[in-house]
Amino acid sequence: MIRAGVYGATGYMGGEVLRVLMEHPEVEIAWATSRSDAQVADYHPNLYGTDIRFIRPDQTTPCDVVFMALPSGVPMELAPKFLKDGCKVIDLGADFRLNDRAAWEKVYKRKHKSWNIAKEAVYGVSELHREEIKKARVIANPGCFASGAILGLAPLVKAGLIDTSKVVVDGLSGTAGIGADLSRPAHHAEIGNNLIPYNVTGHRHTFEAEQELGLLSKRKVNIHFTPVYVPIVRGILDVCHAFPTRKVTRAKLMELYKEFYKDEYFVKVYDLPKEESASWQYKPYPWVNSVSGTNFCFIGLDVDETRGRIVVFSVLDSIGKGGAHVGVQNMNLMFGLDETAGLTRRGLHPI
Amino acid sequence: MIRAGVYGATGYMGGEVLRVLMEHPEVEIAWATSRSDAQVADYHPNLYGTDIRFIRPDQTTPCDVVFMALPSGVPMELAPKFLKDGCKVIDLGADFRLNDRAAWEKVYKRKHKSWNIAKEAVYGVSELHREEIKKARVIANPGCFASGAILGLAPLVKAGLIDTSKVVVDGLSGTAGIGADLSRPAHHAEIGNNLIPYNVTGHRHTFEAEQELGLLSKRKVNIHFTPVYVPIVRGILDVCHAFPTRKVTRAKLMELYKEFYKDEYFVKVYDLPKEESASWQYKPYPWVNSVSGTNFCFIGLDVDETRGRIVVFSVLDSIGKGGAHVGVQNMNLMFGLDETAGLTRRGLHPI
Amino acid sequence: MIRAGVYGATGYMGGEVLRVLMEHPEVEIAWATSRSDAQVADYHPNLYGTDIRFIRPDQTTPCDVVFMALPSGVPMELAPKFLKDGCKVIDLGADFRLNDRAAWEKVYKRKHKSWNIAKEAVYGVSELHREEIKKARVIANPGCFASGAILGLAPLVKAGLIDTSKVVVDGLSGTAGIGADLSRPAHHAEIGNNLIPYNVTGHRHTFEAEQELGLLSKRKVNIHFTPVYVPIVRGILDVCHAFPTRKVTRAKLMELYKEFYKDEYFVKVYDLPKEESASWQYKPYPWVNSVSGTNFCFIGLDVDETRGRIVVFSVLDSIGKGGAHVGVQNMNLMFGLDETAGLTRRGLHPI
Amino acid sequence: MIRAGVYGATGYMGGEVLRVLMEHPEVEIAWATSRSDAQVADYHPNLYGTDIRFIRPDQTTPCDVVFMALPSGVPMELAPKFLKDGCKVIDLGADFRLNDRAAWEKVYKRKHKSWNIAKEAVYGVSELHREEIKKARVIANPGCFASGAILGLAPLVKAGLIDTSKVVVDGLSGTAGIGADLSRPAHHAEIGNNLIPYNVTGHRHTFEAEQELGLLSKRKVNIHFTPVYVPIVRGILDVCHAFPTRKVTRAKLMELYKEFYKDEYFVKVYDLPKEESASWQYKPYPWVNSVSGTNFCFIGLDVDETRGRIVVFSVLDSIGKGGAHVGVQNMNLMFGLDETAGLTRRGLHPI
Repeated sequence: MIRAGVYGATGYMGGEVLRVLMEHPEVEIAWATSRSDAQVADYHPNLYGTDIRFIRPDQTTPCDVVFMALPSGVPMELAPKFLKDGCKVIDLGADFRLNDRAAWEKVYKRKHKSWNIAKEAVYGVSELHREEIKKARVIANPGCFASGAILGLAPLVKAGLIDTSKVVVDGLSGTAGIGADLSRPAHHAEIGNNLIPYNVTGHRHTFEAEQELGLLSKRKVNIHFTPVYVPIVRGILDVCHAFPTRKVTRAKLMELYKEFYKDEYFVKVYDLPKEESASWQYKPYPWVNSVSGTNFCFIGLDVDETRGRIVVFSVLDSIGKGGAHVGVQNMNLMFGLDETAGLTRRGLHPI
Repeated sequence: MIRAGVYGATGYMGGEVLRVLMEHPEVEIAWATSRSDAQVADYHPNLYGTDIRFIRPDQTTPCDVVFMALPSGVPMELAPKFLKDGCKVIDLGADFRLNDRAAWEKVYKRKHKSWNIAKEAVYGVSELHREEIKKARVIANPGCFASGAILGLAPLVKAGLIDTSKVVVDGLSGTAGIGADLSRPAHHAEIGNNLIPYNVTGHRHTFEAEQELGLLSKRKVNIHFTPVYVPIVRGILDVCHAFPTRKVTRAKLMELYKEFYKDEYFVKVYDLPKEESASWQYKPYPWVNSVSGTNFCFIGLDVDETRGRIVVFSVLDSIGKGGAHVGVQNMNLMFGLDETAGLTRRGLHPI
Repeated sequence: MIRAGVYGATGYMGGEVLRVLMEHPEVEIAWATSRSDAQVADYHPNLYGTDIRFIRPDQTTPCDVVFMALPSGVPMELAPKFLKDGCKVIDLGADFRLNDRAAWEKVYKRKHKSWNIAKEAVYGVSELHREEIKKARVIANPGCFASGAILGLAPLVKAGLIDTSKVVVDGLSGTAGIGADLSRPAHHAEIGNNLIPYNVTGHRHTFEAEQELGLLSKRKVNIHFTPVYVPIVRGILDVCHAFPTRKVTRAKLMELYKEFYKDEYFVKVYDLPKEESASWQYKPYPWVNSVSGTNFCFIGLDVDETRGRIVVFSVLDSIGKGGAHVGVQNMNLMFGLDETAGLTRRGLHPI
Repeated sequence: MIRAGVYGATGYMGGEVLRVLMEHPEVEIAWATSRSDAQVADYHPNLYGTDIRFIRPDQTTPCDVVFMALPSGVPMELAPKFLKDGCKVIDLGADFRLNDRAAWEKVYKRKHKSWNIAKEAVYGVSELHREEIKKARVIANPGCFASGAILGLAPLVKAGLIDTSKVVVDGLSGTAGIGADLSRPAHHAEIGNNLIPYNVTGHRHTFEAEQELGLLSKRKVNIHFTPVYVPIVRGILDVCHAFPTRKVTRAKLMELYKEFYKDEYFVKVYDLPKEESASWQYKPYPWVNSVSGTNFCFIGLDVDETRGRIVVFSVLDSIGKGGAHVGVQNMNLMFGLDETAGLTRRGLHPI
């Protein structure tokens, strides 16, 4: 059994790591940290009656792998010691995501204290970096919006099919993405019937997406990204608009995407027929609630041949495929397990 | 492997049976019926990419067990043939739930056509009828509101602790309980910010709850039941009020309930401390979203010693512990499997 | 023009007072206080572009009437000075609601500092205390749950029709009732798909309701009250259950209520026919979203003649008829205006 | 008093016309049609207790103005007769919105039967066509998404500031926009925690927006429009992305918009400061729930100077400023009333 520690287990991301690991056939939870004296069920009432107990952050012990669900800046302080003790590290935060130190320090507004680890870390979109992840000691788990945009746009940029200087992405996010800390945009009376745009030109995940898609396309990629909070809890829908550089049809695009992801278990190209006659033309596109609580990313496609636009819908759960679950997928790869172990659950319908 | 058929697989209950059986280690889905030509993902987009295919109702074949997720009146027509073929039957509907034929025919407003099966059927609250279920050929799976009320009130009526003539239950239900058929109270613009009471004095589940609690208490039980639709999707909260016939404290009640359910995996008595000082005194009671998508029922308790009232909160998922999941729990019992097989998943948090 | 001050204008209740007074034909807003430097639209984005500006609490000036939307304990400190200056006071909080000082001090866990004002204050259910309100200098505006329960049960207790020792009320509340301060039960990811019972045996509004209904019935009244937060924003549904002391039908009850409220503009007895045949029997009962943003209370009725129970549904907006709007109704009465001035707006549908 | 008829008063749009006209100081409702026998409160429970009664469609009588809230294709059949009788017509539907007959017939998939009326009709964005509306007999009230996009983009295209060939608009719509007819995407269990893209490349409102913005800019405008249903009830957020043809700052843009709308009561340019330091940068942008139930359109602005993008947020209520309310604004103009009569209500907060 792999022994896993969870550092920062009271938040939504940490709690999701706990829940997934509990169901994992080859992992045991070595420890889970909390700074408070509360019980697990105080934070995660879904886990009432399980035997998980929190320990204090200073009581951690070496184990095989540590998941870090911590505020920006903390993982780069903690990671060196765990690595020295032979633990692998999966950082669910942003400390090791960017390749460019100056960019990182500008975006995250602090000095980086462990840049050698950042350099070593593998960016954890499993589908794009599988072989490196297998050999990695440190994973920089991707940001949720970035995961959706990267998986949604990878086949396009790889194929050189679009104008990479003008990719527009609207990221609609549920409130789990805001986190467990109380805040105004997460206050039910404010967001319950509302749509709240924020950080509309400079969201941090933009830089990850540009970096990864740039590497794939071998060109500079501009992601014009705007996030909006919507009154769902889990889930992200990235609506990606791109301008094709040559003529393309929906059918051709579907083929391209299916080929690109043909061996992937967790990325499904959503290919239901588009019927012109239907008064409600919603069926050909995936729904964000379908992948809630899972490691799946569903991708939908369409083309406006008249005006010249490709639209890609990429849906995932911000703390599932966009967080804890992909972390576990990466762990599976790092330890030579079946990549899907513990992650095959489907989403609920309805939910 | 047990071969299971799902009759009526396009609705929410049937879809949930499919999803749970897909994850069950000892079951294979023999068939799932639909009257339409559509794909599974047209009805259950969460199952996109799985290999389940619908067959027509007239194409079913004998198998080990059939789950029926069908409108009232249909199971009593179909069950005889399946039983004759040696299939066990788990009716998720109401055809076999009542012991009293006249009562059934009045409540369901039709003649019963297979009363011998109704007599044979075991009422499927697993925790109360475990031994009979193990030997049963036919299960009358309980109604969702009834499940909550029965599990929530069983320890009280069994102990003879309350005035059984005046038990008040408010049943708050999510819209999954309305079903997949379109209807006004399920229209988002109507229910999205609303609370919709309905059938406020004669809901059908009342009769089941009165029957089962009457058997347990050996006295007539009046459940004064009022259901209200609330804008959540999954889940039921039964708020049960009872007037104690002798003095009782919260601590004593907690002890009684914990003893009653001490060997149960799926029923958890929610015992977080009640702190008088907290400005928000919500922690001691279970949350309905904690059990969404699961076979768990969480029960919370309190006592108003001044005015003389016991309040019991019973939460479950109407298509989980209140439907498909408990059906699978009963199947496990009927086939001598581990009672928890395929059902150990915890709920999500947040959701 | 009446000059009105609003003390505590950044919260939801204070903001609603501002909005209603803005539309009132005979009132001008003299001032509105905030302890912060922020603009009105920072707190109330719906008021963006209006010319209301906040002043500091120490900058208030005498005016005709002051609305106090303040934490418990503050109005009893502020009211004496305003009264001395000749201002009338409408306290939207709880400082002056109870007749019994010992009870108040126990329930609110502090010494009362202005009990003479509490004694003078008129409890502001306009429909029951109209004549006293016209002559009052100080109004104790009722609690939202209490308003619903009192209006819903007044005809019953007045008619001596029920067992007043066992009145069960489930109070379902939207999150506006939690207030603008951030808190766990108001965090969208927690409450968005949830139902959160709290203070289930000792909610403060219980005592007001018992006091007022006791006065009406001339008997001790026990309200067995349990509040539950539900994921709507505005609105309260009090589901009231009472056991009749003599036989009664829905039709008779309807008559009683219509007679009781026949001269009331803001209380509507909801009398749509109850059709036994309808598969969804939701029409005869009022919907809470119908009265959102208004001063209306809609009341629905039913009787379970078999088991012996009356059920009353009382719906109102916790910061409308349950708060700011009824405060303005009381102001209208105190100043000899048309009782409905500024308050005739209907709710939205859908909402 | 102006006598107004409402043709098609059972839907959400028709109901909103009724509600607004009820509060209008200079209008009386002459009649409101329904094909059913039901009471007004069966469809619009918010109007319970008012004295509005439905008449049959064949019982209408001439009056001063008729609002038509009818399915596509019906207004073009009814309008000629009303016009002949001297009634002015405000079509809340799409029959008269396009200038190009061939385009209309292609988009709406039928022959047009009253093209002379379509030619006469004035497109009812009041702020852009005020003088023509004053003289009009027939108004083609704009589509909701189109209203938002046109008001949001008009200053930009008028100033020639953007590349009009590549304007991307994501239109997030509440479920009131789906209408009162039952449908799968409006079923609460499907949409309650979901985001449903539909008609993602060919929504009908696109053509109106392109037409109107084309007229303003004197160039061809491509609106790359994608609508998504979100689980709010009222309200539309158009997120508009445009690529500037010359360098521009947020401050400059703010100036441009404020100048453009400086005399408008109902269009507010939302100018709260953008503070770089705030951890949640949501304040500078308007919220869709702020304008719910009103005739206001709030517009927010930002610029990504690095990558070169303008983002405009335009929020309105699809059956308020995007429907019934703007219809009344147009009526006010047509009859020489104060343009704001009956429409000055602010939105609720919270809601």
